[in-house]
Amino acid sequence: MNFAMIFYLLGRVIQVVGAMMAAPCVVALIYRERSGIFFLFCGIAMFAVGTLFTIKKPANKKFYSREGFVMTALSWIVLSATGAIPFWLSGEIPSYTDALFECISGFTTTGASIVPAVEDLSHCVNFWRCFIQLIGGMGVLVFLLALLPVTGQDLYIMKAESPGPNVGKLVPKVRQTAYYLYVIYFLLTGALIVSLIIAGMPVFDSICTAFATTSTGGFGVRNDSISSYAPQVQYVIAAFLFLSGFNYNFYFYFKSGHWKDAFKIEEVRLYAGIFIFILLVIAGALIFISGMDTESAFRHSFFQVGSIMTTAGFSSADFDMWPAICRELLILLMFIGGCAGSTCGGIKVSRLLLYIKMIKREVSGLCHPKSVSVIKMDGKKVDGAILKSAMVFLSAYAVIFVVSILLISLDGFDFTTDFTAVASALGNIGPGFSGVGPTKNFTAFSDFSKYVLMFDMLAGRLELFPMLVLLTPATWKRR
Amino acid sequence: MNFAMIFYLLGRVIQVVGAMMAAPCVVALIYRERSGIFFLFCGIAMFAVGTLFTIKKPANKKFYSREGFVMTALSWIVLSATGAIPFWLSGEIPSYTDALFECISGFTTTGASIVPAVEDLSHCVNFWRCFIQLIGGMGVLVFLLALLPVTGQDLYIMKAESPGPNVGKLVPKVRQTAYYLYVIYFLLTGALIVSLIIAGMPVFDSICTAFATTSTGGFGVRNDSISSYAPQVQYVIAAFLFLSGFNYNFYFYFKSGHWKDAFKIEEVRLYAGIFIFILLVIAGALIFISGMDTESAFRHSFFQVGSIMTTAGFSSADFDMWPAICRELLILLMFIGGCAGSTCGGIKVSRLLLYIKMIKREVSGLCHPKSVSVIKMDGKKVDGAILKSAMVFLSAYAVIFVVSILLISLDGFDFTTDFTAVASALGNIGPGFSGVGPTKNFTAFSDFSKYVLMFDMLAGRLELFPMLVLLTPATWKRR
Repeated sequence: MNFAMIFYLLGRVIQVVGAMMAAPCVVALIYRERSGIFFLFCGIAMFAVGTLFTIKKPANKKFYSREGFVMTALSWIVLSATGAIPFWLSGEIPSYTDALFECISGFTTTGASIVPAVEDLSHCVNFWRCFIQLIGGMGVLVFLLALLPVTGQDLYIMKAESPGPNVGKLVPKVRQTAYYLYVIYFLLTGALIVSLIIAGMPVFDSICTAFATTSTGGFGVRNDSISSYAPQVQYVIAAFLFLSGFNYNFYFYFKSGHWKDAFKIEEVRLYAGIFIFILLVIAGALIFISGMDTESAFRHSFFQVGSIMTTAGFSSADFDMWPAICRELLILLMFIGGCAGSTCGGIKVSRLLLYIKMIKREVSGLCHPKSVSVIKMDGKKVDGAILKSAMVFLSAYAVIFVVSILLISLDGFDFTTDFTAVASALGNIGPGFSGVGPTKNFTAFSDFSKYVLMFDMLAGRLELFPMLVLLTPATWKRR
Repeated sequence: MNFAMIFYLLGRVIQVVGAMMAAPCVVALIYRERSGIFFLFCGIAMFAVGTLFTIKKPANKKFYSREGFVMTALSWIVLSATGAIPFWLSGEIPSYTDALFECISGFTTTGASIVPAVEDLSHCVNFWRCFIQLIGGMGVLVFLLALLPVTGQDLYIMKAESPGPNVGKLVPKVRQTAYYLYVIYFLLTGALIVSLIIAGMPVFDSICTAFATTSTGGFGVRNDSISSYAPQVQYVIAAFLFLSGFNYNFYFYFKSGHWKDAFKIEEVRLYAGIFIFILLVIAGALIFISGMDTESAFRHSFFQVGSIMTTAGFSSADFDMWPAICRELLILLMFIGGCAGSTCGGIKVSRLLLYIKMIKREVSGLCHPKSVSVIKMDGKKVDGAILKSAMVFLSAYAVIFVVSILLISLDGFDFTTDFTAVASALGNIGPGFSGVGPTKNFTAFSDFSKYVLMFDMLAGRLELFPMLVLLTPATWKRR
């Protein structure tokens, strides 16, 4: 293990976090808030510490897959541990465990909160909550790669941090890819800010909410999330959530003029298909079972399907009160998530597609044992290693899921609470059902359970394996 | 598709069901019960119809994998559809849907009941409920193979009906294997009957309960399952449940004198390890959280872990009232199930072992991309096709699971009820939690939900693929 190189890169991460804290300082200046001092102090301290770590470039620059995974996992832990300090020092989140939970929930774009009333927080703290979601959405290390002159380790880091079964090769160069992803991402976010302001949302709320929307994070600046905003605001957010669930390759095809190919991406089609189908079923159930009027039923269904499927986790209504079929469809969406190559969490639509194709192949193989059939995606043969990896992902997801439920069950909550709390953390969603429903939050859990859920959020965001690599004793052995 | 051959074999199945009905007739004679007439009538009619189907042997005896799967799935449907008739005709289960549910629950060794009070049923009906579990436990078609002079199709049928990732090759000949499996099975059942009688259980109850125990079926003849029997009876049943969860290869090694090898089977070790570990955790929780006395805590934990892990589904206490950690451990056991090559349902311990090994390999492969490692089980390399099939099994399990929950959620029950009802049906367990807890039953579901759960029971018993093959349009195409 090349520890010197890992320390060097972690130093860079701390530097970046320090620099990022300039943003809430500006917000604190505008609103003349005392908490800004803590951001200023932490920002300067971290930038200094980070610079100290990175004064000397390590001589040995060898950086392999193992280092890439360890580095990614450690970066996210360091990122969160340092990003949580101002929450705690300012006294707005009195316990460091809670501050860390809130910060991991932010960076991983989960959006699960332990703050009982977000409206009591200062503007700069609320801004920081949403800003870290913006940064976490596209990946902090990819951001680093796009900015800093470090080479060689690019691909390994990108592999470990990117959501989805494989890194879509938009352009041959990794850094170029990172650059385009960020451009698309910021364009979407900018368009959303403007749309929200036009729809009548206050400017501060618009900026924060936009950060939490395109990152599919889900932190809100009001206690009731998005419920008390005007219907047109809810429509705008729902629409941008829908767009944020797309594989970014879709937008890249548009940029390069191949818009016909964009609509042919199988994953995007299945994503849109599931989205619209479940939207209609839930809207129907709300109209015919709950007796809601058509416009509200459609709006809440659109909003909630968008919010849960893209794993953002906003709420426009208390969906824990909806009919069983609606609740269970939403729980299903917590697992599927959005497309690979988006900012969404969950298992991802492309993996779902692979699972369905593999089941089909297995069944037809049982009937006709001598036939050999190849699994194709978007017309191209899918490599065996990708299939294997997608399958192992599912069992690793199941194992982490089950172990987490058992660990948090020590708190003695009901099954629905434990099940959906873990589904929500591992899928980076935010709210769940019952004890962690949209009107509740995660304060009631013990510190131990909070650490379990923090692990799940990180594991979910990094697609499990970096965290598993970190925990495997073999990783740390010399070879 | 060789329809002539399938009809011929289905005729044989009907003949066997007809012949099996002689057993409840004897019970009806002893207890002088009116319901016996219906068994006599149905038995003769079915034997006659079956004989009519099988008078002419089909000329074309070609029988491939596709036919094997279709035949297996159809046999189990025919078996249940015909076996349910006496329940219904006798009027003891007034609705045919309910009678079919009870019969499928019996043959698949699920043990979920729609009868509100089993003590009100006649002895011959109760006997039939437990007798079909005995037959269903080891597999009806394997039974047929061991008895009837039909050749060529053996292996395909056995592959489709046997529980676990692969048929353990005990002895080279398929029929010989089936014979030994039945000998071990009947010896276990016989030993249990004797033990129960010695422990003070009434003779009729002993026979029925033994049938439902070694088959890991779980139908009881008392309304409160096993709760009101003496503690020593509960210990005897728990011990035989534990033994019934072993891979039968274990007993075969004993028979052939290789008892050292028996204890080296990795699956058996993991099974026993999980069993004992969870037993101790639950007993501890019952003592320290619920304040139960040590003996009762140990007994109920032993009984319930045995009952749920082997997917029998008896209850010695209302475990839905136990602490959250106990309930969630039991839900976990509903998924794991017993060993492959046993009468248990669930995903099976050997698959769990493969998943863990694959996750380990994937993680170490990420760290060291150039190393190639082979997955071994009991010292032998596991074939890639078996690994692939085990993985596809997991995703097929997940897909069937999710779709079933969504379908039954139309009834409007809470999430825990829906989730554990499907887990219970697909894992062939019996009771679940909340609305389908040990003191409740499946009567409350709509007919539609009952059919969904019947499908799940059959799919779970036949390890998913025969039912999926049956539903795939490609199966029915001419080639």
